[in-house]
Amino acid sequence: MKLATMKNGSRDGSLYVVDRHMNRAVSAAAIARTMQEALDEWDVAEPRLKQLYNDLNEGHVSNTIPFDTTRCMAPLPRAYQWVDGSAYVNHVELVRKARGVEMPPSFWTDPLMYQGLSDSFIGPTDDIELADESWGIDFEAEVTVVTGDVPMGVTPADARQHIKLIMLVNDVSLRYMAKEELQKGFGFVNCKPTCAFSPVAVTPDELGDAWDGGKVHLPLITHRGDTLFGKPNAGVDMVFDFPTLIAHAAKTRRLTAGSVVGSGTVSNKDTSVGSSCIVEQQTLEKLSTGEVKTPFLKFGERVHIEMLDKEGKSIFGAINQKLVKYEYAKKKAA
Amino acid sequence: MKLATMKNGSRDGSLYVVDRHMNRAVSAAAIARTMQEALDEWDVAEPRLKQLYNDLNEGHVSNTIPFDTTRCMAPLPRAYQWVDGSAYVNHVELVRKARGVEMPPSFWTDPLMYQGLSDSFIGPTDDIELADESWGIDFEAEVTVVTGDVPMGVTPADARQHIKLIMLVNDVSLRYMAKEELQKGFGFVNCKPTCAFSPVAVTPDELGDAWDGGKVHLPLITHRGDTLFGKPNAGVDMVFDFPTLIAHAAKTRRLTAGSVVGSGTVSNKDTSVGSSCIVEQQTLEKLSTGEVKTPFLKFGERVHIEMLDKEGKSIFGAINQKLVKYEYAKKKAA
Repeated sequence: MKLATMKNGSRDGSLYVVDRHMNRAVSAAAIARTMQEALDEWDVAEPRLKQLYNDLNEGHVSNTIPFDTTRCMAPLPRAYQWVDGSAYVNHVELVRKARGVEMPPSFWTDPLMYQGLSDSFIGPTDDIELADESWGIDFEAEVTVVTGDVPMGVTPADARQHIKLIMLVNDVSLRYMAKEELQKGFGFVNCKPTCAFSPVAVTPDELGDAWDGGKVHLPLITHRGDTLFGKPNAGVDMVFDFPTLIAHAAKTRRLTAGSVVGSGTVSNKDTSVGSSCIVEQQTLEKLSTGEVKTPFLKFGERVHIEMLDKEGKSIFGAINQKLVKYEYAKKKAA
Repeated sequence: MKLATMKNGSRDGSLYVVDRHMNRAVSAAAIARTMQEALDEWDVAEPRLKQLYNDLNEGHVSNTIPFDTTRCMAPLPRAYQWVDGSAYVNHVELVRKARGVEMPPSFWTDPLMYQGLSDSFIGPTDDIELADESWGIDFEAEVTVVTGDVPMGVTPADARQHIKLIMLVNDVSLRYMAKEELQKGFGFVNCKPTCAFSPVAVTPDELGDAWDGGKVHLPLITHRGDTLFGKPNAGVDMVFDFPTLIAHAAKTRRLTAGSVVGSGTVSNKDTSVGSSCIVEQQTLEKLSTGEVKTPFLKFGERVHIEMLDKEGKSIFGAINQKLVKYEYAKKKAA
């Protein structure tokens, strides 16, 4: 099943069911007005949404609209939680190596994870608005899951059943600020602006055998402008699968329905597949030639993130964003 | 104006207006069903809620109920954002000193702040449920504000107008886990379980001249069991006021209505007033005698946090919680 949240002028948008090929969509308002409402009562809403999805795919639904990703908000336009792991430990080790810092061996067994802002996620084609190019503006292509209610202390085995939806994210990062915030030890506030999510969130069954209950076994494809930047496989070199990340997040607290849990930047040891963020590319350059060639994003540049199934069809729709300059004075005057 | 959220079996509870003396309360459902709903449309809701508050104080409202803090949820039972500063830098310096670590001088000018979990806040008299006493369980008494919509890049001067409500919080902390997470640099996930908030959230005008637009100038009183633990003045030694903390949080992103911004553990240089958390008390012991005497919390212990006005009357009602043992196996079976 594919679900999207369409802009309607409100903070939470309107929940829509989208057909398998992402051509048509139909309002799910009779079942749940918003994605959060559906997640709050998932056991009741899910079978009804699925029925609507099946009817839509079979052409038995009237009142459909063309599915236009420029009208999409993030599937959860504001969420109660966003925690992002660093499941591709290879990536972390690489970046540390380039900085001349040894990575503690515990990072292979104890997930790195940060609590991120979740109060305003942006849509897949919304501009990335930032005030200053010199912050070291980077993208990060990742896979995320959305949970139902997860009890505190859940085991990884038990956590599987709590995965309700899967999405892609562009976790925008400000690298020069990240350096400072890492030293403070309190995690990321300034260096993590709002994230953009894929047009649709899908139920795990939508992935077929590309979903094994813990990982998505497909390449995550990132373009910078018109150029392919990377296509690492999200199922390869993922040291902590999603149930393990959920269990880590829930060690000392419950997670409320609608919590978004991220994989961290998807990264493979096979460097020929490219990278899912600029800083990794820079690291590889530095390690091989001693010199960084690839610059961070400039205003006007675009980032495109997508995942295709084995037939080459888009699963989540594309994140396709432009970086633009933000000015507080203009915002205030508006 | 005083507002509370009463338990009604739902995730977000029911919004109530509470009279000045916290004796009676009346449903605000005709204005806004939940606190978040009120904050989403604050400009419309606030004058109507204030009218109801005035009528309630003058005895002109029927359908009131006795105000029972054991029936309170957190004013925002789940919020879209919780960022907590460390505005009492003296406290940070003390704790570092005891660890033998020098504090970077930038901590006096650049606020420490972490993004905390906000998906499930607990009520003022709800038990603190945790699985393991050996995690170093501590309380932290703090003041917090709730914002309206704050644009990215807001200045401290402009941030003042975005402060809508003030609350107290018990920011429970697991100190041995915090040590490990600080070293990882990614901030706090496991060491920060869910927070409890005061029974009522108040509008700034409710504080009279104890609120100067940026700080609350009153002692924050913490008891451990029946013993006074500390009563530092929240207006003293607060290096970063709330508008400054809000501006810091909003440097690279907007804050959505209902964002909760915390002061960090309230702490005065005058050590005779005691502390707002155990680890500070331990630090003072270590620095003066070389030995830590005060233990972390044990199951069955109680914490009581309150703030009184100049007439000795409670402003927010009391946070009054017991620490109890949590077992996942029991939770799962239930």
